[in-house]
Amino acid sequence: MSASLARPRVGVWLIGARGSVATTVVTGCAAITAGLHPPTGMVTETPAFTDSALPALSGLVFGGHDTLDCPLPKRAETLTASGVLPPGIATAVAAELAATDREIRPGGPTPGDTRTEAELITAFADDMTDFIRRHELERAVVVNVASTEPASQGPGAPLPVSTLYALAALRAGCPYVNFTPSEGMHHPVAAREAERSGLPYAGRDGKTGQTLLRAVLGPMFAQRALTVRAWSGTNLLGGGDGAALADPAAAAAKNAGKERVLSDTLGTVPEGEVHIDEVPALGDWKTAWDHIAFDGFLGTRMILQTIWQGCDSALAAPLVLDLARLTARAHEAGLTGPLGELGFYFKDPVGAGPAALGEQYAALTGFAERLAAANPDAPAPRPGPDEETR
Amino acid sequence: MSASLARPRVGVWLIGARGSVATTVVTGCAAITAGLHPPTGMVTETPAFTDSALPALSGLVFGGHDTLDCPLPKRAETLTASGVLPPGIATAVAAELAATDREIRPGGPTPGDTRTEAELITAFADDMTDFIRRHELERAVVVNVASTEPASQGPGAPLPVSTLYALAALRAGCPYVNFTPSEGMHHPVAAREAERSGLPYAGRDGKTGQTLLRAVLGPMFAQRALTVRAWSGTNLLGGGDGAALADPAAAAAKNAGKERVLSDTLGTVPEGEVHIDEVPALGDWKTAWDHIAFDGFLGTRMILQTIWQGCDSALAAPLVLDLARLTARAHEAGLTGPLGELGFYFKDPVGAGPAALGEQYAALTGFAERLAAANPDAPAPRPGPDEETR
Amino acid sequence: MSASLARPRVGVWLIGARGSVATTVVTGCAAITAGLHPPTGMVTETPAFTDSALPALSGLVFGGHDTLDCPLPKRAETLTASGVLPPGIATAVAAELAATDREIRPGGPTPGDTRTEAELITAFADDMTDFIRRHELERAVVVNVASTEPASQGPGAPLPVSTLYALAALRAGCPYVNFTPSEGMHHPVAAREAERSGLPYAGRDGKTGQTLLRAVLGPMFAQRALTVRAWSGTNLLGGGDGAALADPAAAAAKNAGKERVLSDTLGTVPEGEVHIDEVPALGDWKTAWDHIAFDGFLGTRMILQTIWQGCDSALAAPLVLDLARLTARAHEAGLTGPLGELGFYFKDPVGAGPAALGEQYAALTGFAERLAAANPDAPAPRPGPDEETR
Amino acid sequence: MSASLARPRVGVWLIGARGSVATTVVTGCAAITAGLHPPTGMVTETPAFTDSALPALSGLVFGGHDTLDCPLPKRAETLTASGVLPPGIATAVAAELAATDREIRPGGPTPGDTRTEAELITAFADDMTDFIRRHELERAVVVNVASTEPASQGPGAPLPVSTLYALAALRAGCPYVNFTPSEGMHHPVAAREAERSGLPYAGRDGKTGQTLLRAVLGPMFAQRALTVRAWSGTNLLGGGDGAALADPAAAAAKNAGKERVLSDTLGTVPEGEVHIDEVPALGDWKTAWDHIAFDGFLGTRMILQTIWQGCDSALAAPLVLDLARLTARAHEAGLTGPLGELGFYFKDPVGAGPAALGEQYAALTGFAERLAAANPDAPAPRPGPDEETR
Repeated sequence: MSASLARPRVGVWLIGARGSVATTVVTGCAAITAGLHPPTGMVTETPAFTDSALPALSGLVFGGHDTLDCPLPKRAETLTASGVLPPGIATAVAAELAATDREIRPGGPTPGDTRTEAELITAFADDMTDFIRRHELERAVVVNVASTEPASQGPGAPLPVSTLYALAALRAGCPYVNFTPSEGMHHPVAAREAERSGLPYAGRDGKTGQTLLRAVLGPMFAQRALTVRAWSGTNLLGGGDGAALADPAAAAAKNAGKERVLSDTLGTVPEGEVHIDEVPALGDWKTAWDHIAFDGFLGTRMILQTIWQGCDSALAAPLVLDLARLTARAHEAGLTGPLGELGFYFKDPVGAGPAALGEQYAALTGFAERLAAANPDAPAPRPGPDEETR
Repeated sequence: MSASLARPRVGVWLIGARGSVATTVVTGCAAITAGLHPPTGMVTETPAFTDSALPALSGLVFGGHDTLDCPLPKRAETLTASGVLPPGIATAVAAELAATDREIRPGGPTPGDTRTEAELITAFADDMTDFIRRHELERAVVVNVASTEPASQGPGAPLPVSTLYALAALRAGCPYVNFTPSEGMHHPVAAREAERSGLPYAGRDGKTGQTLLRAVLGPMFAQRALTVRAWSGTNLLGGGDGAALADPAAAAAKNAGKERVLSDTLGTVPEGEVHIDEVPALGDWKTAWDHIAFDGFLGTRMILQTIWQGCDSALAAPLVLDLARLTARAHEAGLTGPLGELGFYFKDPVGAGPAALGEQYAALTGFAERLAAANPDAPAPRPGPDEETR
Repeated sequence: MSASLARPRVGVWLIGARGSVATTVVTGCAAITAGLHPPTGMVTETPAFTDSALPALSGLVFGGHDTLDCPLPKRAETLTASGVLPPGIATAVAAELAATDREIRPGGPTPGDTRTEAELITAFADDMTDFIRRHELERAVVVNVASTEPASQGPGAPLPVSTLYALAALRAGCPYVNFTPSEGMHHPVAAREAERSGLPYAGRDGKTGQTLLRAVLGPMFAQRALTVRAWSGTNLLGGGDGAALADPAAAAAKNAGKERVLSDTLGTVPEGEVHIDEVPALGDWKTAWDHIAFDGFLGTRMILQTIWQGCDSALAAPLVLDLARLTARAHEAGLTGPLGELGFYFKDPVGAGPAALGEQYAALTGFAERLAAANPDAPAPRPGPDEETR
Repeated sequence: MSASLARPRVGVWLIGARGSVATTVVTGCAAITAGLHPPTGMVTETPAFTDSALPALSGLVFGGHDTLDCPLPKRAETLTASGVLPPGIATAVAAELAATDREIRPGGPTPGDTRTEAELITAFADDMTDFIRRHELERAVVVNVASTEPASQGPGAPLPVSTLYALAALRAGCPYVNFTPSEGMHHPVAAREAERSGLPYAGRDGKTGQTLLRAVLGPMFAQRALTVRAWSGTNLLGGGDGAALADPAAAAAKNAGKERVLSDTLGTVPEGEVHIDEVPALGDWKTAWDHIAFDGFLGTRMILQTIWQGCDSALAAPLVLDLARLTARAHEAGLTGPLGELGFYFKDPVGAGPAALGEQYAALTGFAERLAAANPDAPAPRPGPDEETR
């Protein structure tokens, strides 16, 4: 009985499982479970979520796909040297890192890979179901934290790799979270499958820095009836994400999400561009500068500038843990389709919902209450007619 | 009949009527009424307030007290030269400026003034009632936009001048708005009188720049469960406000409001100081730099910096017009006591209410609906038991 | 005799004579001559140049080419409204603006222009010689302050327009200054002609903002043996220059100069990109943000950021006046070829010379002494063997 | 003979030997000697100093005074955890840290210390001479890197502690470097002794961040004839220095140096204040924001802002090593009195010399040449009549 309670319950299958974000997720979950650090940055550990019956952090089991083969403990060492992980943590949770490392399967397609799309989907889905079976998990959530891929090429093109993984998740019966701007479940083929599957899903593109700020500053200007004339921004990214986004096609995918926040909160699209530069010297850190030219009373010109200096992996990791728990619980509660109430976490949210962070937070805490009201063994109560998620 | 409709209805009596803010208020109101500029920065001109039966801008009549004697048209010229007012506006509304100039009465006490506190209050109140009578106004709102005065000196000390004006407003039956950090209606003597008077009042200290930002950034950190370690700030102010705040006692009054926003939204008081420097070279402009050191996941240290460059008078003026209209309408609708629902406008709001700007905006639009529901000739409906304003 | 002294002596022929920079040059020269403003920003008005026998500001006569036809007094009004020119100045010097306006000839080629390159050069040169003759000028300097043109297209391509003007200057016997990144005298055809002409010339691309800063910060890092890892920058430009530089080819020309400053002062080319964005909402103002990641002792990572907010025309105009005077005087003193000692003013200086601003300033004041030593009626003394300019 | 060459030659006696700066100095010197890191930030390791016969880094022996008793290896661990020292270095040079730790003697006066000033000076000097004797050093340089002490209290007050150490250095025949704003050799009593001693000395207050920037930006504005109207700044300091400078008296000492740079390079003292805030959350890091309001052509107002984020100990340590080597070599070469040519390193340099960093760098490389010309066994050649140092 108590053994059953102690048994790991919920899987978290990470696409890009050897990346900085995934490594930080696994290390951090183990460190917090062991009481080595408070759960800073995890919204699901705040009082609003106490009664939502979320899976315990200690009950999460990690696995995933990756095309690289750097061992996870080694990756954690590198992140320690660059200051992303605090000294000593990687050593303290070495066993958990090694355990996750054993659960990482080769991703694809690798260069020279001759498998068809269908074969890849099957292989990925088999890895997922095997993971669930071997660990006797109640369920597993698939989370895409891989590098951003170029925007899709149109109708005739092959399916984006992120979509292959999304389809594999559906095949394996797993809820899906897209933390990147990649296409994933947004591709029409996957969207159709998702609807048919009755599984909940969330995304896309985690809101971790510049866009997080925009989601509070945009509403501020709107509420004060100040006219934003131009909103310009530059992002300097080190690490893998910078390299991926130096590809203009990938950057375009990311910028679409950033612009959406402004148009949704301001009601117009102001002048100004957003640049994403790869600056390897910054390591795992990123800097975002925003310059906002606005008009005040009688057209007086004023300026707000913001400079955000953060560590991308450390910003993303707690949100990934939040999303895995919320989506697993939504699945348990019988929710299906796009989880619009998780817009708090995303640049370009699925489903309908507000764009201002404050309203998104209210929607999220409402979601927490809805989950609390749902019997763990029964579907969550349906929202009223005005609400979006079913 | 139609003459009666065209007749000016509501007075706005400005304490500090020859200052930059007051001059911008009067010039801007006339310019917007004449269709020379859109009402940028005026929240009461947005759709949410359409049905609230606010007094029309064209129906506002201005007057006030000041200890200086620079003519208002001259002051407007200076503000034009320094870029606060757009070229040509001051000339276009010269008649309105001259008309207001004739309604400005000497403030006090001036150096050598031998009048007692009671005599000053009487003189001020007489000026106000005379203004209402001569213009056949339905009512007048008193708004304090004078320079910040030093924090009060304790029980035995003379009444602060701002409190003399507040008492005069009560005597004249006028609703009162304190747009400055001065004591005004907060002094125990005035607070007692206010309660007895049954008049509505609002304040204090307009939230126009750094604190406006803090009211959206504080909640962002709290909602994301990020730990703010230190929040430091420096304000560079030109103009009269800078000079007034170079006095440490006055700065202390202002900083108390700034800190309140952080403690109310973050739940703790982070490390860090706030400096207010007088920099005459900046003219009517102000710059606020904020440096926020926060911890992310696993204690990773991150930083947000903001730089706000604005024109204080242009930031304050539309809010003063908003407040005059809202408070006049609240008076008409029979509301009394502290108007907590106007916390959106203030650093240190009277009454109870939320500290996050988004929630304050929701409270404000709720107030707009309540005013809309009130028959212009009847009291507004009472709020529910959880609401604060009576 | 005294009439002869009062007679205007030196012409300044501006390519782009109706642009913001040219208008500010003409307005400012007249205003300073009239004693309405001190010569802020003019290095040639500092004591180091007292004995250099530079032409007096009151002795400068302006004319030029432009393809637009907005009258100069009208242009000055617009610049007044946008805050580039102080209120009242344009009116005070209306006569001088009108006089210059009469000396502006149509530039080219305009759309549909069927003239050959040779015909255009002849027409331009005729305008210049006619200007000199009619005003009985001792000499005239041609200064390119037109919008930046795209980088040259290779050997077979038509001559850039800026080169046509440069060749016209040579034909008319005029020293030439290229204040823009356009090709001008750098085109091989013009370079050959310049050598043959025995005329002095200077350029290119005025150093007015971000690059000015880089010319002092680069040496600082080098002198302190700090390793610059990445130097990233974003420029937001309103006005015409922003529009011109939104063309990637034109931006490439400009960025080459910016990078040269870094490689010349640091000895290496750090990581990082430079963006130039057109932001019309900024009007005549520009903002440059630089982010410099550098290593200190034992590789500790540190960061410097700079934000420069300036008015491009007001930054350029005093330098244009300086350059016109210095180049005219160099011509008088018999100097020929590239004036490397004017590198203080340029992003991408002609001739040889240091890249650090401090050393460039020393070279400039040395040049001032050389001019002082030269009899106005005789060639300047030759520099020593280490010096570059003859 | 070869044994003699291999023998440690020059001592570096650090006042504040257990502080962050001292620990970084000792660790870094050992790490660079061992080839673990390049000598980033050490100007004396650049080619300009190759022939100056400076003592080798491998020949430096460290000791010092401190009132604290945290062992140096422990201190180095703390600095590693906070990111000042790179991972692994402290362990790699543990032997050198332990060796230095054994050479640290108790400073004073400690609370309850009943020794007179004369007794303290004697005790300090005995520690220094004992150090020199036991290690058979040719000479030792005393460097003050202790926390800033309050500004001196006037004629009747006790001697500042920093002056006691300075007098002890003179007594022990050691050249002296004051890297802090404390009084040290500036006190009239010490100044008299220094003159009598014939020892060289340098100081005061290392120029490591905001003032370093000011020393290049001030000259830039001056050389471009731009009028600086206001120069405001805020420093946020963690660590011990922040705590020391939170004392207004200590801050006053530091700010005097900062202002001197501006007045010396600009020729005037602009408006604006400098704040120094203690922000423990920043650890060993500091942030300096500067806001510079300046006038361009025709009085157009422009703004430059800089944000410097650095690690104080890592900025200071290479300069301390530079100064120890240069001062030891100056002593060997027979130089005496204030070493004005080291103004490159200081906010408030002793002796005469330029204030612009570029000129200070030229003076420093001139000094390097002068040292090179000096026979190691003979006095350095005297400078010409215009030079300051004798």
